[in-house]
Amino acid sequence: MAAQPVPEGARRHRVVVVGGGFGGMRVVRGLRRAPVDVTVIDRQNFSLFQPLVYQVATGALSDAEVAPPLRWIFRHQPNARVVLAEATGFDLDARRITLGRLANGAPAEAVPYDTLVVAGGSEYSYFGHPEWEAHAPQLKSLDGALDIRTRVLGAFEAAEVEEDPGRRAAWLTFVVVGGGPTGVEMAGQIAELGRDTLKRDFRSADTRTARVLLVEAADRLLGAFPESLSASAERALVKLGVTPLVGHMVVDVTAADVAIRGAGGEVERVPARTAVWAAGVTAAPVAATLAQAAGVEVDRAGRIPVGADLTVAGHPEVFALGDMVTVHNRGGDALPLPGLAPVAIQEGNYAAKLIAARAHGRSRRDFRYRDKGNMATIGRSKAVADIKGVHVSGFPAWSLWLGVHLAYLIGFQNRLLVLLRWSISFFTHGRGARRIENWQPRAAPAAERDRDDEFSPAGRSYL
Amino acid sequence: MAAQPVPEGARRHRVVVVGGGFGGMRVVRGLRRAPVDVTVIDRQNFSLFQPLVYQVATGALSDAEVAPPLRWIFRHQPNARVVLAEATGFDLDARRITLGRLANGAPAEAVPYDTLVVAGGSEYSYFGHPEWEAHAPQLKSLDGALDIRTRVLGAFEAAEVEEDPGRRAAWLTFVVVGGGPTGVEMAGQIAELGRDTLKRDFRSADTRTARVLLVEAADRLLGAFPESLSASAERALVKLGVTPLVGHMVVDVTAADVAIRGAGGEVERVPARTAVWAAGVTAAPVAATLAQAAGVEVDRAGRIPVGADLTVAGHPEVFALGDMVTVHNRGGDALPLPGLAPVAIQEGNYAAKLIAARAHGRSRRDFRYRDKGNMATIGRSKAVADIKGVHVSGFPAWSLWLGVHLAYLIGFQNRLLVLLRWSISFFTHGRGARRIENWQPRAAPAAERDRDDEFSPAGRSYL
Repeated sequence: MAAQPVPEGARRHRVVVVGGGFGGMRVVRGLRRAPVDVTVIDRQNFSLFQPLVYQVATGALSDAEVAPPLRWIFRHQPNARVVLAEATGFDLDARRITLGRLANGAPAEAVPYDTLVVAGGSEYSYFGHPEWEAHAPQLKSLDGALDIRTRVLGAFEAAEVEEDPGRRAAWLTFVVVGGGPTGVEMAGQIAELGRDTLKRDFRSADTRTARVLLVEAADRLLGAFPESLSASAERALVKLGVTPLVGHMVVDVTAADVAIRGAGGEVERVPARTAVWAAGVTAAPVAATLAQAAGVEVDRAGRIPVGADLTVAGHPEVFALGDMVTVHNRGGDALPLPGLAPVAIQEGNYAAKLIAARAHGRSRRDFRYRDKGNMATIGRSKAVADIKGVHVSGFPAWSLWLGVHLAYLIGFQNRLLVLLRWSISFFTHGRGARRIENWQPRAAPAAERDRDDEFSPAGRSYL
Repeated sequence: MAAQPVPEGARRHRVVVVGGGFGGMRVVRGLRRAPVDVTVIDRQNFSLFQPLVYQVATGALSDAEVAPPLRWIFRHQPNARVVLAEATGFDLDARRITLGRLANGAPAEAVPYDTLVVAGGSEYSYFGHPEWEAHAPQLKSLDGALDIRTRVLGAFEAAEVEEDPGRRAAWLTFVVVGGGPTGVEMAGQIAELGRDTLKRDFRSADTRTARVLLVEAADRLLGAFPESLSASAERALVKLGVTPLVGHMVVDVTAADVAIRGAGGEVERVPARTAVWAAGVTAAPVAATLAQAAGVEVDRAGRIPVGADLTVAGHPEVFALGDMVTVHNRGGDALPLPGLAPVAIQEGNYAAKLIAARAHGRSRRDFRYRDKGNMATIGRSKAVADIKGVHVSGFPAWSLWLGVHLAYLIGFQNRLLVLLRWSISFFTHGRGARRIENWQPRAAPAAERDRDDEFSPAGRSYL
C-alpha cells in the first residue's frame, strides 16, 4: 500500500496538486499510469460536485451524495496520496509549498515538488461588501449550502408561527442574487419548495404564497446562453412563481431586508429574511498567492493568467487551471472560457497528459477547449440546453441535464442514490434531506422593527 | 389545510405532545382519526431513528436517512401541527406549557392543553463528570453522531501525517464507553472502518492496526441479553479486532487519553485521541421538569414514575412515556421495561388509544408491553437476537436485524436508500457518507506532551 522505497538517484518525479475539485481530481486520475508520485492537497476530505450543491441547499439531495471522499476516489491509485491541509504559500524557486496545520494539529514541513498544479476553484464575491455574507450565504461550498438549507427551511418554520402578516410575508420572501445557472436553479427550487414540497406541511402559513426574487444585474438571465434560451428560462421561472428582476442590482443586504436598485436607478428595500448569494464569481485566494509568488498579475476577478499549455509565465513546471485562471493563447489573447466544470475537467485532463508526456520526454500541442454545450435546469421537467448551437428546452433538455449530471457524479452508489432521490421526487414532489441544523433566526435590527408598520408598501411593488 | 374554525362551545379536545421521537410520533399518528387537535412540540424538525444513529457516526448512512422531517411525517394528518420549540415548563393546574423562543425568534405564549403527553426520551450521563463530554461526545443525538464521525475519520487523517509511532498509535486507538447495543455496534463499526473500509485509502498509516477498546462496567456485554448471546457477541467482536474490557470502568477522559480502572482496581491511562460515549442512560431533563410540576420524584436515572395507564400520579390528563419514565403496575411495582424503541412505540400507541377512547367516553385496560425480542448487530453479517427466548446469532440474526430496521424506518424513500447503501456496503465494504466537517484536532494538554516518551508501556497492555 505504502509508496515503494525508491533507490537513491532514481527518485520518482513528484507532482503536487493543490485542490481536489473537478480540475485537480482529473489531474490525479490522469496520472494513474504515469511514472510519478502524486500528492493532492485539499482543505476538505471530499471532492465537491459543485453543479448539484444547490440541490443540497433545498433538501433535494444529501450532502454525502455530492461530496465523495478524495481518499476513496484514489483508493486504487497507489501513486496518489491525499493530504488534508491548506496550501498557504509557494516558493517557486525552491519548488516548495508551505501548508497550514496538518490533520494532527502539527505544523507542516514545506512540501517539495517537481511539478506543481494549482486548481483552487472560485467563490462568490460580494461587490466589495463582505459584511453582506452574514445575511446572504454563498451557494458555492457545501457549508454554505447547508447553511442556506437551514435558513430557507427555518424561514418557513418562522412564517408558520409569525402572526403579523407583514412579518410573515418577509419570512416568505426569498431573494436570490445572481442570474447565472446556479441562481436560476436555486430560485426555481425554492419556488418548488413552497408550491409543491411543503404545501401540505404547514397549518398556518400558506407556503404557496412564498415570493422568490431573482436579481440579475445584466439585462437577461443566463448570460452565457443564447438569448432565446434565456427567454424560455425566464418564462419557465415565471410560471414556477419566481420574479426575475433583470437589470437590477443589490445595493444592501441586512438581516431584515434587501435593497435593490432598479434599471431606472430607484432603490427599494424589500422586506426579506432570507437571501442567497450566487453572483460575482471570483478566483479562490490561492490564485493571488500563486500569482504573487510567480510575479504575475491577477485580473479583476482575481484570476491568474496561464499560457496555452496551462503553465504560469516563466515556470513551465507550474500549472494552474480551472475557475481561477484565464488561459491565453500564443498570441497573448485570453480565451473566452466559461467558469464551468467541463472547462476544469478538460484542463485537468490536459495537464495530466502533458505531465505524463514530459515524463517520457515528449511534448503536447496547446490546450484546446471542446465546447460540448451548456445547460441549466429550472425545475421539475424544465431545463434549457445549448448543444453546439442546437437549442433545446423543456422536457428533452431536462432529460439531457439529468443524464449528464448522473454520468459525471463520482461513484456508482452516489449515482444510484441520486437517481433514486430524483425519481421519487419526480413523482412525490418530496425532498428527502430537510434537516434544520441549529436554527437561529437572525435578529432583525432595531431599524427594521421600527419600520414594521410601513413594511409592505415598498415590498409589494415586486409582487 | 388549516384547522377548520370550530364554533364556540364545540372546541375540539387539544392534545399537546412534547417530543417527536418513537413514542411521541406514535401518539400523534394514533390520533389521526380521533376528534382531537394535536400539537407536537420538538426542538428539532425531524424524528430521529435512534437505533441507526451509530451508522451515521461511521459514515455508513447519511443523516437525512435516519431523520425524516416531522412535518413531512404528518403532512397528510390535518389534525396535527408541528411547533419547533423547546418545552421549558409545565403548569399542570392551569393546563399550560411554556415554551422557549419560537422559530421566528419571538417569545412564545403558553400553550394550553386538555391532554398532555411528554415523551422527551433519554441521553447519556457522564457519571457526574460532564466535562468528559468535550472529549467523548455521546452517541445519542444526530449532532453527537456527526461530531463523532468527524472525530473518528479525522483521527485516521491525523494518524496518516503523524510520524511519531507512539502518537500515531494514540490516534489509531478508539475507546467506546458502554457495552450496550449502541456501544457494541459502534465498536464493531469502527473496527470494520479500519480493517476494511479505509484499508486502501491511506498510504502511511496502516488503518488495520487501529485498536478499539470497548469498556463495560458490568461483567458482560449486552446485559439485557441472555448470557449465551453476550458470549457470542463478544467472540464476534474479538474476531473483528475489538478488545472488550468487561468489568472495567472509565475514571477519566482527557484530550490525550482515557483512564480505565480494571476489575482488580488498577488504573491505566490508555493513550487514545478518540472516545465515544454510550453509557449511563438517563432521562431527558424534561422528565425532572414535569416531575417537579407534578410533585413526584424522579428515580436515580432521572425517570418520572407513571401508572399502569402511563399517566402521572394525580393527573390522569398527563401522560409520560418512553425512555424517560418507569411504569408502575397497580400494585406499585416498577415494570422492568428496557429503554428501547419498541417500548416507546407500544407506549405511544397505547396512549393514543386511551386518549381516543376517552374522547368517546370509553376507557381501556392497563398498558402491557409485548416483548417481541431484542437484537444487536456487531458487524457485517453478524448479529445476535433473542426472540421470545429463541436465541439466534450470526447471519440469520443479521438478516432479521436488517429486515426489522428497514421495516421501522419512516418513509419509502429512506427505506430504499438505506437498503441500497447497505447492499452496496455489503459487497464493497464501503461507506457512502464520510464527510469530515471542520476537523479541528483537539490539542493534547501539556501534560500529555510531557508524557509522550513513556506513552506506550501502559497503553500496550491492552493490545
